[in-house]
Amino acid sequence: MKVFIVHAHPERQSLNGALTDIAVDTLTGAGHEVRVSDLYAMRWNPTVAAEDFGPEASSPLDVVHDSGRAYESGALSADIRAEQEKLWWADTVILQFPLWWYTMPAILKGWVDRVFTYGFGYGVGEHNETRYGDRFGEGALQGKRAMLSVTVGGPESHYSDRGINGPIDDLLYPIQHGILYHPGMEVLPPFVLYRTVRMSPEVFADAAEQWKKRLLTLEDTTPVPYRPQNGGDYEIPAARLREGLEGAGRRGFGLHVRG
Amino acid sequence: MKVFIVHAHPERQSLNGALTDIAVDTLTGAGHEVRVSDLYAMRWNPTVAAEDFGPEASSPLDVVHDSGRAYESGALSADIRAEQEKLWWADTVILQFPLWWYTMPAILKGWVDRVFTYGFGYGVGEHNETRYGDRFGEGALQGKRAMLSVTVGGPESHYSDRGINGPIDDLLYPIQHGILYHPGMEVLPPFVLYRTVRMSPEVFADAAEQWKKRLLTLEDTTPVPYRPQNGGDYEIPAARLREGLEGAGRRGFGLHVRG
Repeated sequence: MKVFIVHAHPERQSLNGALTDIAVDTLTGAGHEVRVSDLYAMRWNPTVAAEDFGPEASSPLDVVHDSGRAYESGALSADIRAEQEKLWWADTVILQFPLWWYTMPAILKGWVDRVFTYGFGYGVGEHNETRYGDRFGEGALQGKRAMLSVTVGGPESHYSDRGINGPIDDLLYPIQHGILYHPGMEVLPPFVLYRTVRMSPEVFADAAEQWKKRLLTLEDTTPVPYRPQNGGDYEIPAARLREGLEGAGRRGFGLHVRG
Repeated sequence: MKVFIVHAHPERQSLNGALTDIAVDTLTGAGHEVRVSDLYAMRWNPTVAAEDFGPEASSPLDVVHDSGRAYESGALSADIRAEQEKLWWADTVILQFPLWWYTMPAILKGWVDRVFTYGFGYGVGEHNETRYGDRFGEGALQGKRAMLSVTVGGPESHYSDRGINGPIDDLLYPIQHGILYHPGMEVLPPFVLYRTVRMSPEVFADAAEQWKKRLLTLEDTTPVPYRPQNGGDYEIPAARLREGLEGAGRRGFGLHVRG
């Protein structure tokens, strides 16, 4: 495999740092190629701005279309092009981050905001009577796989079906489905560790073993069965799930997972 | 009212810019005080780092506890303290932003990550048999109200109950409940505009009227009835909703809204 890890934590000597180190060692030890974007070490700029789009950026700025034109013409700033090139190179993408305010840290959100430009991350393909662009199962990153590795400060019960924060699968849906599946990547079930603010050495050792197992079985892991947008399950262009397709009791985000 | 608007868009001559201008004019015209943090104009730094926490930050960095100590001692960097001061000042907070990748732009996420420190945004109050901290209905910002004003590029059907992106209420739950209700603010129903990539002058004029109405009725608007964490609806410390309290058919995030 060619694995691209995007790592987003301000302290390299942290649980997130340890998980990325384990991933690099385990995967290279198994003969895979690995590249890492350590966003803090790179001093990644998370803020979309006109400077991203080269001298041809319009005024007033039009983020959607300016990013698309700059992507097409090669005028995107060098830091963005470098990240897109790593995504082209990879067959497997891992995002490693702590859950901050129920989603990714700003530095990683800004990696998505800037790298997933129009024409690359979205705005790909035709819109006609049977398809609404190449997205959700199709797109520039089709054929690749992605996985989240997330550390959560609180206890698992708070993220359970009846937990006050909502189910972890729902919290991760906008990332897994909305960001990763959107440009065509298959999404593997996430690796989530809870109660990480007070993790004992014994609990860490067990977590490290679980993580290694996940890494060594990446190629055999079944992706989350999200529904392809253009495969017939949705009315087009409304992009509404057709009646009667959902499993019993499914609602909300869960509708968009088959079975 | 004392209204604090946090504005997050790279182009001042944009729909988001127009909505913030309307808010300032409408509210000041009605005799209210308004302050605006225009994050792009302020060149807001979205990245949590050791420098936020003053010379006493620990090494390795411990974001949770370092932010709490710096908050208590007044050592937080000046830009963070200025935003906290605006939140103390306000009785009403409006976040104005475009939906990028199904959530807020990185610059606004980084405003939350940096400003909502331990001891202020979370980590407030005692943990005992009946309460798990002052949060979700209680906390430092209790008694204030908050509202999202969000522009969405795509059509409303994509964000409907059966829409492929999931219901807009679910997409906004981690912000409304997880970020705003968490430190104690009541959350008003969001103001959401769809299909904003191609908005005609007629549609804009209508949207502007709707927005003015929402602004002029802020004081009379009923908040979303989220369930207080420590009011008896949840098992503590599991923070799981007790069986039988939910309305018919409610699941996932919807469980945490009463009625």
